[in-house]
Amino acid sequence: MKVFLVHAHPEPRSFTAAMKDHAIQTLTHAGHEVRVSDLCAMRFKASLDADDFPAAADPAFFKAQAEQMKAHETGALAADILAEQEKLFWSDVLLLQFPLWWSSVPAILKGWVDRVFTMGRVYGGGRWFSDGALRGRRAMCALTTGGPEGIYGSRGRNGSLDKVLFHVQHGMLAFVGYEVLPPFVAWSAARVGDDGRARYLGAYRERLLTLDTTPPIPFHPLEHFDEKLQLKAEFPGEV
Amino acid sequence: MKVFLVHAHPEPRSFTAAMKDHAIQTLTHAGHEVRVSDLCAMRFKASLDADDFPAAADPAFFKAQAEQMKAHETGALAADILAEQEKLFWSDVLLLQFPLWWSSVPAILKGWVDRVFTMGRVYGGGRWFSDGALRGRRAMCALTTGGPEGIYGSRGRNGSLDKVLFHVQHGMLAFVGYEVLPPFVAWSAARVGDDGRARYLGAYRERLLTLDTTPPIPFHPLEHFDEKLQLKAEFPGEV
Repeated sequence: MKVFLVHAHPEPRSFTAAMKDHAIQTLTHAGHEVRVSDLCAMRFKASLDADDFPAAADPAFFKAQAEQMKAHETGALAADILAEQEKLFWSDVLLLQFPLWWSSVPAILKGWVDRVFTMGRVYGGGRWFSDGALRGRRAMCALTTGGPEGIYGSRGRNGSLDKVLFHVQHGMLAFVGYEVLPPFVAWSAARVGDDGRARYLGAYRERLLTLDTTPPIPFHPLEHFDEKLQLKAEFPGEV
Repeated sequence: MKVFLVHAHPEPRSFTAAMKDHAIQTLTHAGHEVRVSDLCAMRFKASLDADDFPAAADPAFFKAQAEQMKAHETGALAADILAEQEKLFWSDVLLLQFPLWWSSVPAILKGWVDRVFTMGRVYGGGRWFSDGALRGRRAMCALTTGGPEGIYGSRGRNGSLDKVLFHVQHGMLAFVGYEVLPPFVAWSAARVGDDGRARYLGAYRERLLTLDTTPPIPFHPLEHFDEKLQLKAEFPGEV
């Protein structure tokens, strides 16, 4: 497998960084190819704005999607965006490695999605979800949390982790076509001691070595929806 | 009322910006005080990192929460963070005005939360949710979407907007103590024409003039949870 690991933690000696190093070592040792974007070390630009498009289609009115489309067609996407897209389309698996901050990814990783998932290249023209540009590939979140597992249950104080991460796993990853694997979570990583963290690395290793066989989260494919993009009656429950 | 409007759109002539201007005018005309942070115009720093803490407690190992605590205690928080916190604690109502990008806020607004909601000042020490530092205040998201309302229903292709925004409304706003009002949404703002957008501004005006009387989203207060932070049996359903 070709694995693209996107890492978003500002401290290179953090446990999130240790998980990243462990993933690189484990996957490489198992014969897979790994490429890494360490967003904080790269000082990756977080904000999608007109500065990304010096040869703007409309310098007087910045419309992100229109500029993305034009820049893709004319080969004028910013070099740092193109470099990320090259890794995205090279890889079979995308790993997002981050600490859960405010029930979401750190801003620099949200900015990576805002800037790299460009209209014209990664979505648009009716390509989305199971018809998305990255269909046939897999993605997984690997994260640390401050709180323990119980408060991320469906009746726990913070709400279920599935619900918390819905915007990432469904709204970002499934949207562009990925099959999304259940997240790997190091709960309360800062509070479990060195032994606890060592156990997390061992458990993470198992998940890394089964990326190609782990069943994905069963999000509904497009054919489960009617022409008004509503779930067909035969499928119960919510999206 | 004192209203703090945080605006996150890179184009000053966008409809999101028009909503911001409409909110300032409507609220001011009704006798309320309004202060605004236009994050893109301010070129607000989006990434929480060691650069925020030049007088670091531990220059060799960046721990965001520990640095935030120490900087708060010693008055060493970065000037741009302090300025935002001053507006936060000045205001009765926080309005977040943004385009929905990838089922979430633009990265610059996520970075505003990452950097401004500091441990020690905005959360921590057991103060959270209905005991949070901003309890007694109200917050509301006002957003534009690309897609129409139907695809954000509970059986629609993108999932319910409640579920999409759970990480913002519950994980960020309710977490620090806000009573969160139902969002105001300008669906498919780019596709409804000038008449449609004028109608949205009229509907937004009604919401702005009833910020103090609109019933908040009924998230569970802390007393609904047991000592393990699980919903007590008498409360059905999920968090």
